[in-house]
This record gives sequence, C-alpha cells and structure tokens, in this order.
Amino acid sequence: MRDTFHDELDQIGTELVDMSRMVASAMSRATSALLDADIALAEEVISDDERVDETYRDLDDRALDVLARQQPVATDLRTIVTTLRIIADLERMGDLAQHIAKVARMRYPQSAVPPELQSTIRDMGTVAGKVIAKAGAVIATQDASTAIELEKDDDAMDTLHRKLFATLLSDEWAHGVEPAIDITLIGRYYERFADHAVSVARRVVYLVTGEMPVAL
Amino acid sequence: MRDTFHDELDQIGTELVDMSRMVASAMSRATSALLDADIALAEEVISDDERVDETYRDLDDRALDVLARQQPVATDLRTIVTTLRIIADLERMGDLAQHIAKVARMRYPQSAVPPELQSTIRDMGTVAGKVIAKAGAVIATQDASTAIELEKDDDAMDTLHRKLFATLLSDEWAHGVEPAIDITLIGRYYERFADHAVSVARRVVYLVTGEMPVAL
Repeated sequence: MRDTFHDELDQIGTELVDMSRMVASAMSRATSALLDADIALAEEVISDDERVDETYRDLDDRALDVLARQQPVATDLRTIVTTLRIIADLERMGDLAQHIAKVARMRYPQSAVPPELQSTIRDMGTVAGKVIAKAGAVIATQDASTAIELEKDDDAMDTLHRKLFATLLSDEWAHGVEPAIDITLIGRYYERFADHAVSVARRVVYLVTGEMPVAL
Repeated sequence: MRDTFHDELDQIGTELVDMSRMVASAMSRATSALLDADIALAEEVISDDERVDETYRDLDDRALDVLARQQPVATDLRTIVTTLRIIADLERMGDLAQHIAKVARMRYPQSAVPPELQSTIRDMGTVAGKVIAKAGAVIATQDASTAIELEKDDDAMDTLHRKLFATLLSDEWAHGVEPAIDITLIGRYYERFADHAVSVARRVVYLVTGEMPVAL
C-alpha cells in the first residue's frame, strides 16, 4: 500500500498533467484567435488564464503543504521541489498564451499576422502544441526519450523563429514597422513557450536519472 | 547564539545580495555596451553570465542541502522556498542582461539604438539599476517600504517602454524594420528585468508579512 505522502504526490502529479492540458488548450486557441482574428476566442483565452493561475496557486499551496507536513528526504524531497518548479513553468506558459491572445485582441478586426506569415505562425502553433503535449507526457510517464524528442521540437521552433525574422527582414516585407513589432513579440512568446516546455522535461529527467539527457 | 540552520540561511542571504550586485553590474554594463556599441564590454557581459549561473547553481544546491538536512518547518521552510525562487529570479535577470549585450554585439560596430532613442534606453538602464538595487536591499533588509518604491520604479519602466513603442510607431521613425525589431526585443528585456525585480520584492514581503504589500 502507498503511504499518504506518495498518494498526495501522485494526486498533484495527475493535476499537473491536467494543468498542462489547460495550457495546451490556451495556446491552441490563442494561435487560432491570432490567425483568424477571432476576438471572442481571444477574450476567452485571456479570461481563462485566471483558471490556470488558480490551478497554479492551488497546486503550489498543496505541494508546499505536503513539504511542510511530510518532511520528505532524498528523492521525495527532490520530487516536491521539482514539482514546485514545474508548476511555475506551466503557469508562465499560460501567461505566454495569454500574451498572444492579447496581440490578437489588440489588432482586431485585422489579424496581427500578414498573409505571408500565416503558415509560419501556424507551424509555430503546431510545434507549441507538440512541446506542451510532450511536457505533459514526460510529467506523466517520466520517459526520457520523450524529453529528447521535445528537444528536437524546440529546435524546430528555433528554426521557425529564424524564418519569421528572415521574412520581416526581406525586401518583400511591405507591412512596415507596426506588424513587425507584433510579429517580433509573438515570435518571442512562442519561443519562450517552447523553452519552458524543455525546462519542464529536463527537470523531470534530472529528477529520475540525476543527469541531464544525453542529447541536451 | 544562532543555530546552524539560521547561520546557513543568513550566509545564503548575504550571497544572494552579492548575486544581486553581480546582476546589477551585468545590466549596467549591458546598457553601456548597447548605447556605446562597445564590443569588448558586450563580450565581457556575455561571458560573465557564466559566473552568475555558477552562483545560481551553488546557492540553489546549498539551499536544497539546508532544506534536506535541517527539515525546517513553518517560517523557516517558507524562507528556504522563497530563497530558491529568488535565486531563480536573479539568474533570469542575469540572462536578460546577457540578451541585451548580445544585441549590442550583433549590431557592432553600429549601436543597435538610433540617436533619438538613446535617452529612453539610457533611462530604462537607469531604472533597471534602481530596481535591482532595491531588490537587493529588500533581500537584505526585508523592508516593505522599499518594495513599494520598487513597484513605482516598475511603473516608470512601463512608461518608458510605452514611449519606446510610440517612437517606433511615429511618422518620424526613419530606420525601418531591423532596428525596430532590435528595439522591440531590447524593450521587452528591460521590462522583464523589472518584472523579476518586483517578483523578488513581493516574495520577500509576502514571506515577512504573509500578505502582499498594499500598493501591489
């Protein structure tokens, strides 16, 4: 039979995976809102971030409470500290999805993304979906090979990010400064989103193996 | 006589303040490197970030070690957890100074900052110096009134950030898209730097009072 500590930790782990799904949904909807200039969807993502924040506070409180009551040592202690850090990463990823939705809202009824960049941003949204799904899977399964795949997705995000800049700086760019500012910020938000997903996966792998994955 | 736990915690606190000075120096030099297109200074900030990261790892290890060995409860436990979070904030602030230095390096021998924006960026650098100095002071003194002042500096940073965008979007902007991208990213780095300083101060105040400061 499991003891109370491990039951509580398992429960928090399950809800962390739920939180990762909440963040995945926010990012997916933020990308759609951005590409389609969908103001209702943008508003939804912006207001739903309060739910992500509530989940953050709830899980953070409970993890601290377990830490205070159970006085874990060794691996158990490392697990709780890692959990606290992952909760913070996911909360920040929710913020980044919200930032993207805010750009969508600011430019409505236009899309902040000019036609020639729609496919790149769509691809960045797809990669964002992959990295958060894999971060959730790594939390659930502690599988290091998924963490290594996630690093490759992050490389793909960096490639897309460079492509974004190349388009902004090409002679064909005819949209001027304001959309360039939007795209620069949007690109940064997607990139940071993937960075945090990598961070989540690395934390789990480090917890399980005591070492960073080989590919990192 | 203090016990071992509080001695260790005090020692970590002192080194946290040292770390905040290291980050302050990095940000100050990054701003000079950026404004003066000083490649040597930019390279120095970029390579010195490794020292900030080493300090991060050292303090993080030691705080975790204290947590594992001393099994603190109540306020002591909250202090250690808060310390872990502040260490992470300061590490990230070091990264942001490094990012600014990298923009300076990328545009050398030009300055990434056009003449009409030099004073705004200089002001952002000044405010960045204020917020990190105050964050260090709040860590050292746990003084809530300094934390409230820091919030006002953060408001000043937001005002400068908006001024930056206003210049980029004005009819007088004659530098095109590439410098606008640089300035957008630089502005974001300064803004995030101040956000993390606010976060440090809020964490300390919350630790001391159990409540967020009135002005927050």
